[in-house]
Amino acid sequence: MYTEFETEITVRPDDIDMNNHVHYSKYLDYLLMARYDQMAKDYKLSMEEFIAMGFGWVASTAHIEYRRQIRLNNRVLVRTRLESFSGAQCRVLFKILNKETKKISAEGYVDYTMVSLNTGKAIRIPPEIIEKYAI
Amino acid sequence: MYTEFETEITVRPDDIDMNNHVHYSKYLDYLLMARYDQMAKDYKLSMEEFIAMGFGWVASTAHIEYRRQIRLNNRVLVRTRLESFSGAQCRVLFKILNKETKKISAEGYVDYTMVSLNTGKAIRIPPEIIEKYAI
Amino acid sequence: MYTEFETEITVRPDDIDMNNHVHYSKYLDYLLMARYDQMAKDYKLSMEEFIAMGFGWVASTAHIEYRRQIRLNNRVLVRTRLESFSGAQCRVLFKILNKETKKISAEGYVDYTMVSLNTGKAIRIPPEIIEKYAI
Amino acid sequence: MYTEFETEITVRPDDIDMNNHVHYSKYLDYLLMARYDQMAKDYKLSMEEFIAMGFGWVASTAHIEYRRQIRLNNRVLVRTRLESFSGAQCRVLFKILNKETKKISAEGYVDYTMVSLNTGKAIRIPPEIIEKYAI
Repeated sequence: MYTEFETEITVRPDDIDMNNHVHYSKYLDYLLMARYDQMAKDYKLSMEEFIAMGFGWVASTAHIEYRRQIRLNNRVLVRTRLESFSGAQCRVLFKILNKETKKISAEGYVDYTMVSLNTGKAIRIPPEIIEKYAI
Repeated sequence: MYTEFETEITVRPDDIDMNNHVHYSKYLDYLLMARYDQMAKDYKLSMEEFIAMGFGWVASTAHIEYRRQIRLNNRVLVRTRLESFSGAQCRVLFKILNKETKKISAEGYVDYTMVSLNTGKAIRIPPEIIEKYAI
Repeated sequence: MYTEFETEITVRPDDIDMNNHVHYSKYLDYLLMARYDQMAKDYKLSMEEFIAMGFGWVASTAHIEYRRQIRLNNRVLVRTRLESFSGAQCRVLFKILNKETKKISAEGYVDYTMVSLNTGKAIRIPPEIIEKYAI
Repeated sequence: MYTEFETEITVRPDDIDMNNHVHYSKYLDYLLMARYDQMAKDYKLSMEEFIAMGFGWVASTAHIEYRRQIRLNNRVLVRTRLESFSGAQCRVLFKILNKETKKISAEGYVDYTMVSLNTGKAIRIPPEIIEKYAI
């Protein structure tokens, strides 16, 4: 079981769509923001450092279940944790919550594939990278 | 088996992210564009008419598998078809393709829930709406 | 001379474009975020309250001069202040700064027109609204 | 006097904001789309070719006057033309129109600065580039 980390997101007016709540694709942007934040803050291996090592992460699968709408004046928490590693992939579980009510706005997972920025090809996640994330 | 419909999407520069391909959340926007287009063009019940009847569709689940990156000068086709109806929900399958190579960029499904705009609550999809979509 | 207020913005990965810095149209979104924040925090008349009174603000003109690129790990401040009122319009000056270096990333102004949400028409800004903003 | 060129834009649902019309920052994205399209289609020097030559264009100033709202089912035309060249800069005038009514939704200009992608610095627009655009 890996640790769950948390990032607070400020909802912006440009995130709101014609239905007067956060647009459904923006949830994936909130998740991405949280992962970038947590890579630096919690895993101590920022995306910039990861890229400088010649590596990248690309999303292979995204699965999201929408529970409750998010409104402009809501405060939002994104909690993520690693679930598993397998070859070039890892699965990250996420929950997006209303900060005040702690009710879940959405939850799901994303499978990320580690790639070499030189070749663009998937590469088996090396032990030293797993070690960084397996906390 | 329901019919698959198709919409062509023009990739815009603002869809491209720092990795130089279409940003992963924009795929959901391409899908939404295709559904709006096909509601009017193919199902002959535009979103505007649907809203005027006091109804709306909200995404309950989105599942997407990313296969190949989409680049700025790519031409993109989004093909969708209804898979099933169940209570207030229907499942829509989608494929996003490169128009030239016909290779799949992404595929997946979205579950939509029909809601009353008055109450905000889910409502069992009535037969006359199913009939419109069951083509 | 009216007071300048400040809002801190977190740059998100989805704000970054293919040139690896904040996309040029997102500056207007940062400005809008700052105005919403400052309406509630500083002017004590939130956009929600304003809308509940039957009013809205629409942008009539936007003018922006880009000075320095904003990068993903930059911390950004948006400072705005009222410059003038005239009929249905007011002009808001803004500066977008790098929080660490205090150098200006962009500056400009937006003219906002006050509208009635009922009629959609411009309405002369009433004295009690000017009083709220004229601080 | 340089030639005005035209690009048709399809409004997407994700362009619509909480006020039920195209979000004010998206106008700059429509303009960018039009310039990319016209660089290839009309000036016969696509952005990709320009970048391959080691050059880029960055926006230095954007000025936009909003005239009429754009709605989801509107068809939109973006017309642009070069106005002037000066050192490293050129000014592009634009109009965004409703395709059916031909009424102007917005108009304005953008000053672009030509940069070297190697150094990131502005470079005086060379005669052979001016020649390409001065049509």
